[in-house]
Amino acid sequence: MKKHYSEELNHLKEMVLRMGGLVETMTHRAVRALVERKREILADVVEMEQQVDRLHIDIDEIALGMIALRQPTATDLRFITAAMKINTDLERIGDQAINITEQTEKLLSVPLVKPLIDIPRMAEVAEEMLKAALDAFVRGDVELAYRTIKRDDAVDQLKDQVFRELLTFMMADASTIAPSMDLILVSRHLERIADHATNICEDVIFMVKGKDVRHQDPPE
Amino acid sequence: MKKHYSEELNHLKEMVLRMGGLVETMTHRAVRALVERKREILADVVEMEQQVDRLHIDIDEIALGMIALRQPTATDLRFITAAMKINTDLERIGDQAINITEQTEKLLSVPLVKPLIDIPRMAEVAEEMLKAALDAFVRGDVELAYRTIKRDDAVDQLKDQVFRELLTFMMADASTIAPSMDLILVSRHLERIADHATNICEDVIFMVKGKDVRHQDPPE
Repeated sequence: MKKHYSEELNHLKEMVLRMGGLVETMTHRAVRALVERKREILADVVEMEQQVDRLHIDIDEIALGMIALRQPTATDLRFITAAMKINTDLERIGDQAINITEQTEKLLSVPLVKPLIDIPRMAEVAEEMLKAALDAFVRGDVELAYRTIKRDDAVDQLKDQVFRELLTFMMADASTIAPSMDLILVSRHLERIADHATNICEDVIFMVKGKDVRHQDPPE
Repeated sequence: MKKHYSEELNHLKEMVLRMGGLVETMTHRAVRALVERKREILADVVEMEQQVDRLHIDIDEIALGMIALRQPTATDLRFITAAMKINTDLERIGDQAINITEQTEKLLSVPLVKPLIDIPRMAEVAEEMLKAALDAFVRGDVELAYRTIKRDDAVDQLKDQVFRELLTFMMADASTIAPSMDLILVSRHLERIADHATNICEDVIFMVKGKDVRHQDPPE
């Protein structure tokens, strides 16, 4: 029974990682479709969302079942509830990737407003944050979680930069207003993906230290 | 012990309702400050967020403690985990209300682009949805939860209407671009508040029926 239980915990961890890998790939492909102007990539992203939705339900069911049947210790209980919370954030990252595909769909039918530099950079940082957050979860690595939370500022700065730059384009030429709006929304979706990665890091810190770090600044 | 446990469950429910009331008031005041152009209301909203953050942490702690110590039955376990999930959504509604205050702050230093009709209407529907979602939670009312989920479409339509209308303003007069953008973002924040209310309804349905309704259409 002891062994079986630790296998269940491992299985839960693997499902969370599989879901994390899926939403990371969705984000990557949605932005690649935009940057490389390849509409055909978008269908992949939409297809992957169905797998994510399935995993979202399965992870919650398995986690609840374990809490009900196994009477987990404080440490395992924090792990299982962290998995459930991370599950929610991952599902919402998938939603954001879908939102990006919707804006991309529109953007690919008009000429490019400007060369895309900040948006791919934002996507890169957001994806790295997500990957690091999941590594921190697997290894219970609190330091990595804190370091990753700090990167969120860079994403916010890039988002402000995108906004200011596109505002000048829109002011100068009304024909750029609609596509600029779409690009601004893409940057907001990427910002939210980074926010969800931050949430995951906070859950990891709580899981390991049993201390709630939300709503306070990370230590220097 | 039996009585004490049911008191704990009640206490948890009351805390969730208190938090729900706070974020509803935050949303209401943030939009009122915008519509009535009363900057002084904004400070209230920012102050209330601190109480929300405190409750957010307390609710999770109490819920986890109950799971660890009380070995809840399947029904109570679904109630407690629903409370934890609703807690997350309520905290994020508070974040959205804060986002609205930030846009409002900017909007109050420039003239109004147009009379605000759709945005107060969106706020009204979103607040009603939140109130209904919390009623559904307290009463375990699945029908109310389903009815409330359906109202989300009205919010989405209003959001699209706001976007289309402001786009024509921006095209016609470049000086309206920056404030129009802020109004569009306010409408997006309200849309997300309605989304969180929808999430709460889905959690209520799962709590009552033990069935996962996410990622599928509600029955007619």
